[in-house]
Amino acid sequence: MTPPFKADPAFDPGSVVVCDWALCQVRLQDDARFPWLILIPRRAGLHEIEDLGAAGRALLMDEVVRAGEVVRMLGEAALRPVQKLNVAALGNVTAQLHVHVVGRRHDDELWPDPVWGRGPPVPYGAQALQEAASRIRVHQAG
Amino acid sequence: MTPPFKADPAFDPGSVVVCDWALCQVRLQDDARFPWLILIPRRAGLHEIEDLGAAGRALLMDEVVRAGEVVRMLGEAALRPVQKLNVAALGNVTAQLHVHVVGRRHDDELWPDPVWGRGPPVPYGAQALQEAASRIRVHQAG
Repeated sequence: MTPPFKADPAFDPGSVVVCDWALCQVRLQDDARFPWLILIPRRAGLHEIEDLGAAGRALLMDEVVRAGEVVRMLGEAALRPVQKLNVAALGNVTAQLHVHVVGRRHDDELWPDPVWGRGPPVPYGAQALQEAASRIRVHQAG
Repeated sequence: MTPPFKADPAFDPGSVVVCDWALCQVRLQDDARFPWLILIPRRAGLHEIEDLGAAGRALLMDEVVRAGEVVRMLGEAALRPVQKLNVAALGNVTAQLHVHVVGRRHDDELWPDPVWGRGPPVPYGAQALQEAASRIRVHQAG
C-alpha cells in the first residue's frame, strides 16, 4: 500500500497551501518581498527529482512552468513585474522534495543573491495573504 | 536562420567545458568544495525554462537527472559521497539559461546554505580539473 502524502510540517510556519495541481501541492511563501511558490509533489518518500519516475518528472516540469506564470501574474498584480525567475530544488533544510519558483527583480532587496536563508521574511498579513492565494486559484482555474 | 549557440563568456573564468549532451553543454565548475555541473542548453536566446519548447524541457529534465548521477559519481571518487543534490536555474548574474546541479554534504562548508555567491571558490588545480573532466567523459560514455 502506498503511504499517504503529507507535506512536512516544517513548511507550515512559512507558507500556506493554495491548491493541488496534478502532481504538486502548491504553496504560497508568506514573504511579500518576492512572489514565491513552493511545489511539493504529492507522493510520499521523495527527496530528489530522480526519485520521481519519468511521468512524474514530466508533470513536475509542466508545473514548474505553470508556477512561473503564476509568479509573473502575482508580480504584475503587485505592480512589480518579475524580471527573472529563480527555480530551485534544494532541500538542505527540509529534505522532502520541493521546488521553489521565485520571481526576482533587479531592484529587489537581495538581487542578485539567492533568496534562501537570507533575511527575515516580510509577512503579507492575513488578508493580503488570502487575497494572493485567491488570485492564484482564480488564475489557475482560468 | 537560427543564430548559433554560444555560451556566455561569463561562464569561462569559473568553469570548463566537459562535453555536449543532446541538449546541453556540460561544464564542470572549478570549485573543489563541491561536485558541481552547469548545464547550458545549446540554443541561442534562452533565458527561462519556459523559453524551451516541451521537447527541450523534457530533454533538460533528463539531463538534470543525468547530471545528478555524474555529481554523485564525482563525490564518490573524492571519497565524499553526495548526501543531497541542489538543482537550480537562477540566472541573476548570467542571464543565459543554465542549470546548476551541485552535490552537497552535511559537513560541507556552506551547509545548509545555498552555494551561489558564497565565498571564494577553491580551484581544483589544472591537473585535477582535467582528471575530473575526463572522469565525467568516461562515465557518461559508459
